[in-house]
Amino acid sequence: MDCVGFIGLGLMGRPMALNLVKKGFPLTVYNRSRAPVEALVAAGAAEAGSPADAAARSDVVITIVPDAPDVRAVLEGPRGVFATIRPGSVIVDMSTIAPAAARDLAAAAASRGAAMLDAPVSGGEIGAINGTLSIMVGGDAEALERVRPVLAAVGDPDRIVHIGPPGAGQLCKACNQVCIGGALASVAEAFAIARKAGIDPAKVREALLGGFAASRVLEVHGERILKGNYAPGFKTRLYHKDLGIVGQTIHDLQVPAPVAALVQQYVGALMAAGRGDEDYSALAKAVFEAAGLE
Amino acid sequence: MDCVGFIGLGLMGRPMALNLVKKGFPLTVYNRSRAPVEALVAAGAAEAGSPADAAARSDVVITIVPDAPDVRAVLEGPRGVFATIRPGSVIVDMSTIAPAAARDLAAAAASRGAAMLDAPVSGGEIGAINGTLSIMVGGDAEALERVRPVLAAVGDPDRIVHIGPPGAGQLCKACNQVCIGGALASVAEAFAIARKAGIDPAKVREALLGGFAASRVLEVHGERILKGNYAPGFKTRLYHKDLGIVGQTIHDLQVPAPVAALVQQYVGALMAAGRGDEDYSALAKAVFEAAGLE
Repeated sequence: MDCVGFIGLGLMGRPMALNLVKKGFPLTVYNRSRAPVEALVAAGAAEAGSPADAAARSDVVITIVPDAPDVRAVLEGPRGVFATIRPGSVIVDMSTIAPAAARDLAAAAASRGAAMLDAPVSGGEIGAINGTLSIMVGGDAEALERVRPVLAAVGDPDRIVHIGPPGAGQLCKACNQVCIGGALASVAEAFAIARKAGIDPAKVREALLGGFAASRVLEVHGERILKGNYAPGFKTRLYHKDLGIVGQTIHDLQVPAPVAALVQQYVGALMAAGRGDEDYSALAKAVFEAAGLE
Repeated sequence: MDCVGFIGLGLMGRPMALNLVKKGFPLTVYNRSRAPVEALVAAGAAEAGSPADAAARSDVVITIVPDAPDVRAVLEGPRGVFATIRPGSVIVDMSTIAPAAARDLAAAAASRGAAMLDAPVSGGEIGAINGTLSIMVGGDAEALERVRPVLAAVGDPDRIVHIGPPGAGQLCKACNQVCIGGALASVAEAFAIARKAGIDPAKVREALLGGFAASRVLEVHGERILKGNYAPGFKTRLYHKDLGIVGQTIHDLQVPAPVAALVQQYVGALMAAGRGDEDYSALAKAVFEAAGLE
């Protein structure tokens, strides 16, 4: 069984690392702040003093941190993964970063004889806890086969999809955020229409879940919105960061994507309103307020 | 068992009427053109010479026609349902029309001692064939209980939802079309992003179906789009009509709903391009072409 290094014990990383321990992988964890490390050590993981230390003890190194500068720091920093990575190792970055950054880092890893996969996830904290994440993989197909058992410990084995070359996983994640955003904004608008007409949006949700409008967003976020429960979940500031990647991607690729652009504006407004630490389904509050509701 | 009159044997009405016959309801059908009537008569339905004739023989009258003027013609026309409707009967209009029109017609029916429900559906032709439609009902709750066994023959019994007073079913349907539109447009934009980046959108769909972006639109229309199969299904011209109702509704209610408005513009462009008779998932073609694809 591969020794696994795990860097980044945030809302997503913590339950993912825990699942790796539970499935019996010898795990070495590193995190900037110590509190989440202790929980993992209590569960049976070893603690690394630095990303370099974690990499030195591992065949497979997983990183899941907020953004590209964090990934770069963890890999390229003075005590980073690249300092100790062994040829033949595989680095799996499960953060959500720009496709171009993922391509650059994969090339940097390759120059050290290591493979690097971009493998962002979807499914949220619930998916991370239940080990049912969807994983979108860019990079070398053989490297993916090598680490597939590791990924299957944190994700749904049937939803580990090889999308294409380095960066393709991140590109797919950008597509994922576009689809979620379009669904979320339209659910919010539909609920605003219902409320303004004096109709119970809960009944609208119930009826719509039976038809073509059915979606996980309507099911899960629809319920959050009805309850006004905007505790994260997935923070608005992270979704804002992801939509920055989407905005740059559609610009660079020259794809007119007005719904995606609109969602980006909505989420920018949420940030401006100081809602960065609320769940991103708080987009509905912005829609409601624009309609003079609440 | 209630005698049922059924007016409007289109893409949706035909399989719905057939399910009523199969479930044993004594059915009298009327349709403007004769071809679909023959199929129903062969299955055991009686034929009416006019909407008035159908109503004279029925306790419950279902109408499902393209738009409000058609519903008005069928109900208020010279040989219309209102000419013969008996007090205590229930009219169930399953067309998609404006909430205000539904309210007006319900009042007109009430003045003749008949109840009228607005009960538009979601689930498409497949749902109509399988008898699993979602039905959103506006109007008197007792009248709904009275006709529930009839509706359960064409829809999923667990998805017959009483939304509220007259017009509420249509309001809910408008919400449904908003949610579908936001999902459809964003899936189309995501596929355009993938294609422009040289990535297989089929893999994107596969990965996304496992996460929070999962939706019936991604599943069903996503596959149509991948195959370039724009045979209806649900015609663009009908969706265009529905989005006219949405546009009027958000205007009247003063709900800023920019995603809904954007979807309306997309579908207007489809109509302008002569695609009214294609399935409304052809929205993806407009998105692809704007990105210089195909």
